Amino acid sequence: MKVYLDNAATTAMDPKVLEAMLPYLSQYYGNPSSVHSHGREVRSAIERSRKKVAEILNASPGEIFFTSGGTEADNTALVCTLDSYDIKHVLTSPLEHHAVLHTLEECHKRGHITLDLAQVNEKGEIDMDHLTDWVRKHPKSLVSIMHANNEIGNINDIETIGAVCREYGVFFHSDTVQTMGHYTHDLKTLPIDALVAGGHKFHGPKGSGFLYLNKKNKIRPFIYGGAQERSMRGGTENVYGIVGIAKALELAYAEMHEHQVHMEALKDRFIHQLRDAIPEVSFNGLSADLSKSLYTVLNVSLPPSEENSGMVLFNLDLHGISASGGSACSSGATVGSHVLQALGASAERDSVRFSFSRFNTAEEIDYTVSKLKEMYSVTV
Amino acid sequence: MKVYLDNAATTAMDPKVLEAMLPYLSQYYGNPSSVHSHGREVRSAIERSRKKVAEILNASPGEIFFTSGGTEADNTALVCTLDSYDIKHVLTSPLEHHAVLHTLEECHKRGHITLDLAQVNEKGEIDMDHLTDWVRKHPKSLVSIMHANNEIGNINDIETIGAVCREYGVFFHSDTVQTMGHYTHDLKTLPIDALVAGGHKFHGPKGSGFLYLNKKNKIRPFIYGGAQERSMRGGTENVYGIVGIAKALELAYAEMHEHQVHMEALKDRFIHQLRDAIPEVSFNGLSADLSKSLYTVLNVSLPPSEENSGMVLFNLDLHGISASGGSACSSGATVGSHVLQALGASAERDSVRFSFSRFNTAEEIDYTVSKLKEMYSVTV
Ligand SMILES: Cc1ncc(COP(=O)(O)O)c(C=O)c1O
Ligand SMILES: Cc1ncc(COP(=O)(O)O)c(C=O)c1O
Repeated sequence: MKVYLDNAATTAMDPKVLEAMLPYLSQYYGNPSSVHSHGREVRSAIERSRKKVAEILNASPGEIFFTSGGTEADNTALVCTLDSYDIKHVLTSPLEHHAVLHTLEECHKRGHITLDLAQVNEKGEIDMDHLTDWVRKHPKSLVSIMHANNEIGNINDIETIGAVCREYGVFFHSDTVQTMGHYTHDLKTLPIDALVAGGHKFHGPKGSGFLYLNKKNKIRPFIYGGAQERSMRGGTENVYGIVGIAKALELAYAEMHEHQVHMEALKDRFIHQLRDAIPEVSFNGLSADLSKSLYTVLNVSLPPSEENSGMVLFNLDLHGISASGGSACSSGATVGSHVLQALGASAERDSVRFSFSRFNTAEEIDYTVSKLKEMYSVTV
Repeated sequence: MKVYLDNAATTAMDPKVLEAMLPYLSQYYGNPSSVHSHGREVRSAIERSRKKVAEILNASPGEIFFTSGGTEADNTALVCTLDSYDIKHVLTSPLEHHAVLHTLEECHKRGHITLDLAQVNEKGEIDMDHLTDWVRKHPKSLVSIMHANNEIGNINDIETIGAVCREYGVFFHSDTVQTMGHYTHDLKTLPIDALVAGGHKFHGPKGSGFLYLNKKNKIRPFIYGGAQERSMRGGTENVYGIVGIAKALELAYAEMHEHQVHMEALKDRFIHQLRDAIPEVSFNGLSADLSKSLYTVLNVSLPPSEENSGMVLFNLDLHGISASGGSACSSGATVGSHVLQALGASAERDSVRFSFSRFNTAEEIDYTVSKLKEMYSVTV
């Protein structure tokens, strides 16, 4: 049995997404910047996609900029905002994805900004008093706090953080890569300046993403070149990627509630069965709290075990089960996660992130728990 | 009849390329950074693609970095090199693509570099004495000169330019977007530091590209995030884009000579027929010189005409013929090309770029010339 439980790293493309993309991988090949018929057909597909994304998120099409992925969108939102507004102080969290952390660390290293970190407790919860205080003391600064963490699944209260930032005129960026397509975002009411998406996290194509930038903001391009994306991103557009991410978002929103119910049930089942199977199990961050964490992510802390320590992922893989030890970019390692480190997780225990999609089944969960149980039952 | 003669803007994907990509758009969806079986299959496809590209170009795999396109590759090569080596002086040409020009102009605007322009004559030929003199006077600087121009098709002698740069320790970048896959590049012998490719210019996928960076160079990433592309470009890889560009390059090299012969014949036919049909026609740059310009590009300068001035592209489009007025990003306009302006082209005459692919036929050329002849014959 092959079980894919690494959906926070990437998801399988929905066949309907591929179907929507295929015409743009074959007959409609024109350059969207060309005015002739070959180009116009393709231009129109891009603008329809932008409109679709904007409508779904309750934004306007002029606020959506397509990129090559979540990481590029994060880099654009951060580097170009800091530069364009000459912002000198930034607050982020030690639990951010490297797309945010490494980008900000680089800006700091070059001496462009001071970089402070939000305070988090051992569950990964952000100290809101500290954050509010920081914002109050740093007007005209930038705050970057992710909507949900990709390793432990903690959901941050971006409405409240955004409101605090808005009150003090602070630019608020949120890495929404893990929630886009899984939770609704209403950009008419959410007090936010920039958020980002990567298509492959919600059954869309790899190499696709977008940046939402509130229309009151005007920042410089990240990639210089042609006048594409209203001169915000040079380069011939990845047309089928754009068509694909829009289709994926549409499909995600169409049945979001059903998918959520399905995955919540899987996650709940996993937690309960696992507690029965391995009583010493625990869960990192707020992962086991269904109301405060992604229904797509369960981060399991496993007891020390001679047979499995440092080898859990490998052993799971032998049983055909794909899971990961942290963020995708380092999912090889069960140790070395900067998120778990920031939480002070014990190095004695292996942590495994299981992450779900609408394509997973109860049978797959049962199989996975049964294998974990085998692996962690005392050998005679 | 529908005739696509805008292949310098973008090409139709070769069906064999799509075929190679399809498995990575469906069954092989893992994240290449994941160590489990779902990830390993995909990682291996990426590394096979890198090896293929490297072998074809006589480079080593460690010198190839996949990007989202030619523009991102140009931005990376320029911005990150200037930054990493603290380079203060740059020479480029007024005929470069905006991916190079706008990027360098931005670096200049920020006060990071002085920016000088190579001298070009009315045919777009670079004054090599001036260039050599500049290089001699600016050790440890950077020169960026494109291999071939996307509008007029002029081919620059990058072997000689590279040799001059190497002699004086100057970093040499060449925008090879228009020649990659159409001409051979032997990176063992070519004295070059960086060159770039965009897959969609040689029947590969949009949203794919690569940067070749000579292994003696070590520059910072352009996009910060995960450890992808050996920490040179963060972001989950566009796997099928990577598979596609490698396949497209392989197909291009497999029959490059045959394709060249075919397109040279088309271009020659076009030139001769057009001279017969419209005696006042001329050709911009070195476009009509088959030995000194791209066999894929013919830039035609048409006589003033009441019926057609400012409307040629539009009128061609009515006949089902897709051509362009300049670079893709502004192919709407028959005026306003910075390249033609730098050549001092007369604003009285319309310029149209016709650009060919291996899929074009002699019949299409004949049809196009017949329509141009109709359009430019004196109305009674
Ligand atoms: C010479 C040249 N450089 C760079 C580019 C940019 O390539 P892309 O738009 O695929 O990023 C192009 C394409 O128009 C080009 O012709
Ligand atoms: C929270 C978060 N941000 C950013 C990214 C980067 O997305 P991508 O790798 O698609 O560019 C990821 C994906 O791993 C993520 O989980």
